[in-house]
Amino acid sequence: MIRKELTIGLFGFGCVGYGLFEVLHKTPGLKTTIKKICVKQEGKSRPIPAENFTFNKHYILDDPEINVVVELIDDADAAFEIVSEALKKGKAVVSANKKMIAEHFEELLDLQRTYNAPLLYEAACCASIPIIRNLEEYYDTDLLSSVEGIVNGSCNYILSKIFAENLDYNLALAEAQAQGYAESDPTLDTSGSDAKYKLLLLIAHAFGLVLKPEEIFTLGIERIGNTELQYAREKGCKIKLVAQAIKNTDNTISFFVIPKFVSPESRLFTVDEAFNGVITHTSFAETQFFVGKGAGAYPTASAVLSDLSALTYDYRYEYKKLQQTETILTSEETLLNVLLTDSQRDITEYYNLFESIEETCTRKDGSYIIGSITLSNLKELVKHPAGKPSVILQSIAEPVKIAELQTITELEEQAV
Amino acid sequence: MIRKELTIGLFGFGCVGYGLFEVLHKTPGLKTTIKKICVKQEGKSRPIPAENFTFNKHYILDDPEINVVVELIDDADAAFEIVSEALKKGKAVVSANKKMIAEHFEELLDLQRTYNAPLLYEAACCASIPIIRNLEEYYDTDLLSSVEGIVNGSCNYILSKIFAENLDYNLALAEAQAQGYAESDPTLDTSGSDAKYKLLLLIAHAFGLVLKPEEIFTLGIERIGNTELQYAREKGCKIKLVAQAIKNTDNTISFFVIPKFVSPESRLFTVDEAFNGVITHTSFAETQFFVGKGAGAYPTASAVLSDLSALTYDYRYEYKKLQQTETILTSEETLLNVLLTDSQRDITEYYNLFESIEETCTRKDGSYIIGSITLSNLKELVKHPAGKPSVILQSIAEPVKIAELQTITELEEQAV
Repeated sequence: MIRKELTIGLFGFGCVGYGLFEVLHKTPGLKTTIKKICVKQEGKSRPIPAENFTFNKHYILDDPEINVVVELIDDADAAFEIVSEALKKGKAVVSANKKMIAEHFEELLDLQRTYNAPLLYEAACCASIPIIRNLEEYYDTDLLSSVEGIVNGSCNYILSKIFAENLDYNLALAEAQAQGYAESDPTLDTSGSDAKYKLLLLIAHAFGLVLKPEEIFTLGIERIGNTELQYAREKGCKIKLVAQAIKNTDNTISFFVIPKFVSPESRLFTVDEAFNGVITHTSFAETQFFVGKGAGAYPTASAVLSDLSALTYDYRYEYKKLQQTETILTSEETLLNVLLTDSQRDITEYYNLFESIEETCTRKDGSYIIGSITLSNLKELVKHPAGKPSVILQSIAEPVKIAELQTITELEEQAV
Repeated sequence: MIRKELTIGLFGFGCVGYGLFEVLHKTPGLKTTIKKICVKQEGKSRPIPAENFTFNKHYILDDPEINVVVELIDDADAAFEIVSEALKKGKAVVSANKKMIAEHFEELLDLQRTYNAPLLYEAACCASIPIIRNLEEYYDTDLLSSVEGIVNGSCNYILSKIFAENLDYNLALAEAQAQGYAESDPTLDTSGSDAKYKLLLLIAHAFGLVLKPEEIFTLGIERIGNTELQYAREKGCKIKLVAQAIKNTDNTISFFVIPKFVSPESRLFTVDEAFNGVITHTSFAETQFFVGKGAGAYPTASAVLSDLSALTYDYRYEYKKLQQTETILTSEETLLNVLLTDSQRDITEYYNLFESIEETCTRKDGSYIIGSITLSNLKELVKHPAGKPSVILQSIAEPVKIAELQTITELEEQAV
């Protein structure tokens, strides 16, 4: 098999862009050349000679010799313009921009089909963990019942700090910012939006379901207060921001991003700091667990590199599950066991939204409810204008679909 | 993309075979039919009707309608006959037989090429963990520097028992046998042979290096005595049987299967019981960690299923790295930090084989040496006819190759 030579036009030369530049120079096996790098600001001093750069995107997009565009810029709108123009010109595209891809997923599918040009984006989801490719290639069966992951490095860093150093949320956030693990405006991460974009990609490749970002119920970590932290510490748990999609017993799919109590029994308990971790659950293979660095210049560049390497073999996502499935129904009836607190509103006002209540505690500071609530009622609950509820998931009450199997022992008795 | 329909001839109807039969019935998306199952013993009662079975392999091999042979029998020699005959007839083959594949790797490569027929064997290495496919597809770069894993479920079960229940080796083995996690003749597992076969597969797909089983230095777990266990317990470590291949700083490859002290800082520490775990280390993505069930009817059947699913899309291993690389040199000069004990021979007799000695303890029961020794001297050491040394790896003294990188901070300062 002869590998295709890639002539790359690179957009963006931040940490990841420069990381990629370096990585490519240390990967002689890959016959790739970065022909030109398009950057925004003129007159900045840069670590490589000026002739590598252009400030005009058409210099790359109109160059027929450039067959691959790598898009590594921050601005999601500008990124979409670049990526869609590149696909329209039949160029292969590699992008790490989860927001852009999630917001335009359907359009990007169409563009890939119409112009027969591949778009790869492993770096957009959990950086170095090859989860998109694994969902796309390996779990190509009806048997996947759940994907659950820690997919945002900044939130995980903040939450890890909270538990490792016994801090409250604001202190941990400030430390994460000081150390470069959270942006000066951390909202995209702490609100759960970044995790939501990544979950959208996971769901498309896991279950063949294309969603819009606003369809994914998302709670961030900003409201986590001392009541929840104390509760977690007493139980020996940590709180992690978890993105999850499950196939229910009736084959509907439910999905959400919610902070979750994670006990030492869960593999996610050991995923700390800037690491990401994803657990897939299948009826037959049981759980698979993937861990790797979820952010950072080199881990991200390395995922981009793997996509480039795949392009040399003409790889593209087949989106097999999108084609296989007729109609996938989503469900909001999944029952979640949660702990609810609210510093602004009497928690008894929320009682009627719960299916069942296991424990309530009313006190001046830190009243809480522990009970089970449907996803749809939870959506209602967080919308209430008078409240500022903080909700932490304990577990999913509705069991994840497991095919009815004989036990291995029964099997062994029967088999020959 | 239209999926190919598979008409399967199945060899073997033990746990995995029957597991696969069940799994396929619960996977309607996959258009596969098991046309016939070839088993050895006539007259046994089986859980499905007799018309499914044949006792003559040619019934399957000579049937032109059968386009896929799934080989799930124990006997490695008979398996090789079946698999090579099937490939010669242009049938695709899926096998879970690590011993057979490892012992005939080069011949099986030739057969695949000559008869243009694919052989897939994800189930042969760590059952449900998609590690072969990931090494083949995702780490397709020069940047992989190490693959390290717990790849044998039986050994891991025994070793887990030892540390969880404070047992000695023989008691733990007996418990594992009683619970079906170890064979009545457990030698294939406890000698490290099974792990060696799997490492051979990992090395071929990770580094493009084809080895013969006897070229892989292998120490099993049978000699682990109380001195080593006590040492591990005092240090808060566990002992795990680890299969590892590393790329040295001079680009040579070293590889071995050796019991290893694993501290809580290592991700492998949490891989217990029948789970397997593999860590890949790359220069840029840092560490990736894969965990899943390494044995059992359903996890193994599930890996076979994934291979079948891949065949419906005409997937085959490209063995890209075998083609990329000219000559890969292996090295036995890697320096290993080990703890050595010997119940049969005066340990001072081993001194001259060590590069350096950090600690020795001479006492009636349980003398030991802690020091560093080259892999080649370790091979000499274990061959000595008078001795019965037990060697536990502490760490690799020669550092694993890491490309010289600027730190991210430097990068951030330079980047724009």
